[in-house]
Amino acid sequence: MNKSLAASVSPALYSSKTNTKIFTLTSAEHNIEVGNWKIDSTQLGIFDTYFIIEQKILHGGKQEGSKIITLTSPNGLTITLSPTRGMSIINVIGQDMRFGWDSPVKEIVNPAFINLESRSGAGWLEGFNEMMVRCGFEWAGHPGLENGEMRTLHGKIGNTPASEVEIEINETAPYEIKIRGLIKESTFKKADLQTLAELSYTPGTHHFTIHDSLTNHADYPRDYQIMYHSNFSKPLLEKDAQFVAPIKEISPFNDYAQKGLTDWSAYLGPTKDFDEMVFNIVPFSKTDGSTIAALHNKDGSKGAAIEFNVKELPYLTLWKNTDTEKQGYVTGIEPGTNYAYAASIEREQGRIRQVKPGKTVHFKIKYSALMNKEAVNKVKKEITDIQGNQKTTIIQKPIAKE
Amino acid sequence: MNKSLAASVSPALYSSKTNTKIFTLTSAEHNIEVGNWKIDSTQLGIFDTYFIIEQKILHGGKQEGSKIITLTSPNGLTITLSPTRGMSIINVIGQDMRFGWDSPVKEIVNPAFINLESRSGAGWLEGFNEMMVRCGFEWAGHPGLENGEMRTLHGKIGNTPASEVEIEINETAPYEIKIRGLIKESTFKKADLQTLAELSYTPGTHHFTIHDSLTNHADYPRDYQIMYHSNFSKPLLEKDAQFVAPIKEISPFNDYAQKGLTDWSAYLGPTKDFDEMVFNIVPFSKTDGSTIAALHNKDGSKGAAIEFNVKELPYLTLWKNTDTEKQGYVTGIEPGTNYAYAASIEREQGRIRQVKPGKTVHFKIKYSALMNKEAVNKVKKEITDIQGNQKTTIIQKPIAKE
Amino acid sequence: MNKSLAASVSPALYSSKTNTKIFTLTSAEHNIEVGNWKIDSTQLGIFDTYFIIEQKILHGGKQEGSKIITLTSPNGLTITLSPTRGMSIINVIGQDMRFGWDSPVKEIVNPAFINLESRSGAGWLEGFNEMMVRCGFEWAGHPGLENGEMRTLHGKIGNTPASEVEIEINETAPYEIKIRGLIKESTFKKADLQTLAELSYTPGTHHFTIHDSLTNHADYPRDYQIMYHSNFSKPLLEKDAQFVAPIKEISPFNDYAQKGLTDWSAYLGPTKDFDEMVFNIVPFSKTDGSTIAALHNKDGSKGAAIEFNVKELPYLTLWKNTDTEKQGYVTGIEPGTNYAYAASIEREQGRIRQVKPGKTVHFKIKYSALMNKEAVNKVKKEITDIQGNQKTTIIQKPIAKE
Repeated sequence: MNKSLAASVSPALYSSKTNTKIFTLTSAEHNIEVGNWKIDSTQLGIFDTYFIIEQKILHGGKQEGSKIITLTSPNGLTITLSPTRGMSIINVIGQDMRFGWDSPVKEIVNPAFINLESRSGAGWLEGFNEMMVRCGFEWAGHPGLENGEMRTLHGKIGNTPASEVEIEINETAPYEIKIRGLIKESTFKKADLQTLAELSYTPGTHHFTIHDSLTNHADYPRDYQIMYHSNFSKPLLEKDAQFVAPIKEISPFNDYAQKGLTDWSAYLGPTKDFDEMVFNIVPFSKTDGSTIAALHNKDGSKGAAIEFNVKELPYLTLWKNTDTEKQGYVTGIEPGTNYAYAASIEREQGRIRQVKPGKTVHFKIKYSALMNKEAVNKVKKEITDIQGNQKTTIIQKPIAKE
Repeated sequence: MNKSLAASVSPALYSSKTNTKIFTLTSAEHNIEVGNWKIDSTQLGIFDTYFIIEQKILHGGKQEGSKIITLTSPNGLTITLSPTRGMSIINVIGQDMRFGWDSPVKEIVNPAFINLESRSGAGWLEGFNEMMVRCGFEWAGHPGLENGEMRTLHGKIGNTPASEVEIEINETAPYEIKIRGLIKESTFKKADLQTLAELSYTPGTHHFTIHDSLTNHADYPRDYQIMYHSNFSKPLLEKDAQFVAPIKEISPFNDYAQKGLTDWSAYLGPTKDFDEMVFNIVPFSKTDGSTIAALHNKDGSKGAAIEFNVKELPYLTLWKNTDTEKQGYVTGIEPGTNYAYAASIEREQGRIRQVKPGKTVHFKIKYSALMNKEAVNKVKKEITDIQGNQKTTIIQKPIAKE
Repeated sequence: MNKSLAASVSPALYSSKTNTKIFTLTSAEHNIEVGNWKIDSTQLGIFDTYFIIEQKILHGGKQEGSKIITLTSPNGLTITLSPTRGMSIINVIGQDMRFGWDSPVKEIVNPAFINLESRSGAGWLEGFNEMMVRCGFEWAGHPGLENGEMRTLHGKIGNTPASEVEIEINETAPYEIKIRGLIKESTFKKADLQTLAELSYTPGTHHFTIHDSLTNHADYPRDYQIMYHSNFSKPLLEKDAQFVAPIKEISPFNDYAQKGLTDWSAYLGPTKDFDEMVFNIVPFSKTDGSTIAALHNKDGSKGAAIEFNVKELPYLTLWKNTDTEKQGYVTGIEPGTNYAYAASIEREQGRIRQVKPGKTVHFKIKYSALMNKEAVNKVKKEITDIQGNQKTTIIQKPIAKE
């Protein structure tokens, strides 16, 4: 049995994991690719819960050769992610619940067929359909030139196949499952940013956690940017659905969003010619930095909560793309180290961070499916508590011009 | 048995097809790829004609992973097309007959190895060797910027792998065979143009039909352009070969073509430093819009006829590339919705069409191999009849400047 | 048994090869791909030496689908090259000896995942980790525009999968092995340059030979450029390692390299912020044009010698990239037809050559691993002999400005 990927990145964190089984699905280092692969809990001798984990190689169109991994927990969530697309989460399905959206892009596009530089640096749009895609890490945000080089829309990690993929299953109840992928952004003279992207899920539950460890393998400090582009549509998004978060400051991304400032936290139904409104948010947090943002449907009977830490992810982008259903009726809640402006603006405004040589920075996000009013109200209460009597500053003018 | 692709696009047209067999070769929707695959008529219990249909996965160089489908009718035509390259027709071979040409590009290049943006937007040339390649649909024509985005040479469909591929065989004589592919040009916020590209052929005959159904799956009207870039060389193209069509108006594409206006309908043999001359043609048609263009060899003993409808395809581009054989000795006869100018010029001159949300536009082209003088003369007579005593306007100056 | 690739390029050279066995590993022409494949000398009935030749299909990350061929001679060298990456040599390993280096790029990147146009034409850096990569042939050198087209860094051949790959084994002692690949740079209207890249190695020895035959299959003369980017690190490169060659003229590539002119032939150890210094060299040669350049470690106990002919390769670029180990501690010794300036400068200064229609130009390079002081001294003596009492001209100013 090989050493876990996690142990190789953070030995201290993972040294005592003795009661786990690790399955290597892909390894560039050891030249492994298991291809179509499936396991269920009974094969592991587990009979007090049930789950299936399956990897499939996809075919047809631009998804030829793409891989997806689906973790199915009949009483909890079914989570599908794609190692070929940088461990992006394609969608998450539960009873009357879905995280994700319907993009006109239906296939899980193999990056071999994507040209990120096309469409003036917006080629990323030809593959965008995920529930959660990382925008980063070498750069993120809107396309633009820096030092004569095109920083393509939202960076490369979402179109970079994972070099190593493994699944770790805890053999003791409640049988936590971790799906890990190592994605390398390694370019001679430019960057050697390697991200261990980990998704943790316990069968039967309605929440899962992302824990990313970004290591700078270079001998020089390197810039990085990250936005967790987390996307929701029906059944959570609908007319009068609400976004809630403890907010210190909010500003419109551009002149068009400025028009939406009066009612920025409520959603429209599918609306022709709406296009998108984007808001930049500085969240309030608890003293330990933890905070929470949420989306819930009109009657507050279903929702999604996103917990993160402002020490890791100080900014939050709210993307309201409530255009028609076929155009993509979707909202993005995007904790990040920066806003979605072009890298040159992010730099000017001081939001581009660096990771030192040999160092690792961590990002943790917990996504919870709020299955009923009680769960929604509990999260709303938490958010109200964090806000307390602190005021929200509404900045009327966009803080930058693209 | 799955519902035919055609039925899903146009139920009315295809609802009564009961005596057909459908084979799904590729499906992104159902995650199917049959890989190497072959069937012949005897396996279908057909013994009064003979045909073979075969799919091959190609290897080596830049054709690694490309697929071709070859339909062989020993007494008729052998037609090869490539699902990987947008259902382009690679070549068509008959007794002493060939549609197609010899490009310096010999491989069936997998689009994974093509960068359409390279060479100032002319990366398409690194894969161009087809007998018929669709130029479209999101855009077509020469490369150029529109709204800051590069419209690469002749668009993306020819370098987009088909998402769904099926073969429909009519089990009743004369056993018409249809090869269909669904090609998606789907990009978030930009386009959701899906083309059902169908080739029909009846074993033993010397003609085949293209029927493309372009559907706009978006909620907004979308521009489209299409040129059927149909290419011929030996044995049809030779010194003193002739192009014939009923012509209302002809103009030279550029200053260089202007020099060829005096003898534009006759061909040179392979000619060093000739490069290419391109002519823009408005064809005359019958009252129902149907028209015909043809190419025949010097003595009129062999030819190719292309029938189309000017309501669907009002323009015709004649591409005379009678340079040396290794450079590519070839002529293109290209019915289309537009000429080959950059999209910005086509727009300015009003030749860019739109397809409404949810609507489908159809394009039908019949290609006939004219196997002898009789067949050639018959087509020439038809063309003369359409022209009647109507005059051809020859515009001396190029109508646009690139 | 198929006709050897070499015979098809140069029948005269290869007509009498009767006692050889040829194995075709890949053929676009005959649609062959053997996939994972292995043979050893015992299977060939050879028992007085031992070697293994193995092809592996790689998996994981951006090397998905890449192929490597490894030729292992336990008493000599183990040579790994990649057909998918234009027959580049990945590395060469011997007893306490290595040709090659440690790039931050660890995978053998499939060109399907490379966009050469990215990073302002420097996308090549996302795959660069070879011991020897050909920079050419349609163009080479630093990125820049020519006639409005981006000449991407170091051309396309290193990111072009070989169309044909074969291994020829001489069945008579000493059992010379030749690994050949045909790489096509064929683009309609642009180029049809086909390179038969051959590596020859005799088991048990410490040297190998490259023999490339570049044929212009077009009817027009075509420009070409080639630099054999040959890269070395530990154990040869270290503080006070030395570069030696008979030198007629040396100039700094740019202002930064000018600062390194005083001590240009000695190397630093891994040095933070050193980046790279590049020097342009015109070598002296024997009367037949043959010459030799070498690198040896500090105490002269190990080295690498590169023999070439200035009639074929008149220039030599010395790339000193003695930055930190993780940044890539490496030196390149690069015989070529040109320097590493952008094509526009190379053209202006007259270093771009042409190959006539149908003609083949040949390039031969011998790489020797110098395993001890004796071998190093022998090569140093040869170099001293070629230099004789001829003077080295040191040009202080860069000959061009990028």
